[in-house]
Amino acid sequence: MELLQKNYCFGGEQRTYSLFSHALKSETKFSIYLPAQSIEQNCPAVFFLAGLTCNEETFAIKAHAQKMAATLGMILIMPDTSPRGEDVANEQAWDIGQGAGFYINAQKMPWKKHFHMESYLIDELYPQVVENFLIDKQKIGIMGHSMGGHGALTLAWKYPHLFNSISAFAPICAASECAWGEKVFSAYLGEDKLEWKKNDAVALIENKGALFPNILIDQGLNDQFYEQLQPEKLKDVCEKKGQFLTLRFHDHYDHGYYFIQSFIDDHLKFHMAQINE
Amino acid sequence: MELLQKNYCFGGEQRTYSLFSHALKSETKFSIYLPAQSIEQNCPAVFFLAGLTCNEETFAIKAHAQKMAATLGMILIMPDTSPRGEDVANEQAWDIGQGAGFYINAQKMPWKKHFHMESYLIDELYPQVVENFLIDKQKIGIMGHSMGGHGALTLAWKYPHLFNSISAFAPICAASECAWGEKVFSAYLGEDKLEWKKNDAVALIENKGALFPNILIDQGLNDQFYEQLQPEKLKDVCEKKGQFLTLRFHDHYDHGYYFIQSFIDDHLKFHMAQINE
Repeated sequence: MELLQKNYCFGGEQRTYSLFSHALKSETKFSIYLPAQSIEQNCPAVFFLAGLTCNEETFAIKAHAQKMAATLGMILIMPDTSPRGEDVANEQAWDIGQGAGFYINAQKMPWKKHFHMESYLIDELYPQVVENFLIDKQKIGIMGHSMGGHGALTLAWKYPHLFNSISAFAPICAASECAWGEKVFSAYLGEDKLEWKKNDAVALIENKGALFPNILIDQGLNDQFYEQLQPEKLKDVCEKKGQFLTLRFHDHYDHGYYFIQSFIDDHLKFHMAQINE
Repeated sequence: MELLQKNYCFGGEQRTYSLFSHALKSETKFSIYLPAQSIEQNCPAVFFLAGLTCNEETFAIKAHAQKMAATLGMILIMPDTSPRGEDVANEQAWDIGQGAGFYINAQKMPWKKHFHMESYLIDELYPQVVENFLIDKQKIGIMGHSMGGHGALTLAWKYPHLFNSISAFAPICAASECAWGEKVFSAYLGEDKLEWKKNDAVALIENKGALFPNILIDQGLNDQFYEQLQPEKLKDVCEKKGQFLTLRFHDHYDHGYYFIQSFIDDHLKFHMAQINE
């Protein structure tokens, strides 16, 4: 794990690291916000999974989360959204390939050579940050935006023992049933729809039932990608399965980080409350 | 004035406009944050002048100012840092030419054809925003970062009737006496050092004396460009001239926006207090 950059911020440090991932077969970066409290005591931590076209810098720069994280004494962990590099498969499109890892393990060539974001996050990044920083292992949350909201929901339902809280901004709720997900899943996973369902948040909740005390979702009603997101399907399956869901719709807000920054403090406070329950 | 983009943010709107500037002889952009209060009542406003390599988006994305501006009901106005375009003079360097307008009027070719940021800001952007948005003309402040801190200080001392409050992050305090300023002033203004002094904050305060009740300056002590900034010279001239100055040094903080975001709320509250005095 190599430190590439650090900047003092609200009495703590915003850092960027690179590491070699065996799952991704490539170097990858993540950024981390370490509040002052984390210098000497174990702190709660939240993973943030970003959306299409984003990388490990996006949330750090645009979400305006550090002030509240500093106040709460919460570590923020921000991985990249896919493997990267000249030898990593890609397409001339922003919704597949590099920048669009979808937080799953690809099974089809050329994608399966590098695109194993699920294994990277769960088997490599998670244990390495727990080992290298003062993180309270019993107080780890996961959140995400759009594709990263899909990632947060699916990883929380696949690995509920690893996460104590879950929230998302404008998540892709049913990736196997929207255009973005259909394009990527058929490329990364092939045509077996059973494999798609294993990587679809609504299908996972349908299958595994309620697992968390609450989920916080914020969704803008002026979201230009609304039809890809299908929060109604998430609402329906949570009602059906008895999974408590705090789904907030917001007039005027769109899909971007000006929306996220407007509600990020609520999410960090939500994670803090859930984690401490 | 053409609206290029708008995003709802903390109950208000973050917008980007383009307009044709006669001073710059080109199209230019600015961004503006309009808090909800500004829909129906005159609000105070603060200009933010950005630093080298930045543009009208930088502060809007990276400074994390909108939340406090929404709370205070304060409009934020963020111009670009120079004229732009294929026909605008430039050099293969980040500290001169496009992105490095220095908020002055160039007098030497090729720069004097387009590089009139001072006239653009004072004679065009300022009256146009006052006319087009609900701005209280008696409550307008100016602030900036680095090159933009130089811009804020020099424009405040050149046009004190237009501004009610002044602050800066890591400003270039004596542009005529640092490497950045010497390079640009000799190119834009020529070798007449009297012209340089007319565009140097410390020299302007030396010449015109105290003009504002207070100046707020934040300066990181881990600033990689510290030698270009010379806050000690600003301190000395303010003491000599009886100009009250709140100069805060901060251990560990560097020159970037992670520093700015850590103290931006203090600056907006400072402007609000000064403006309302």
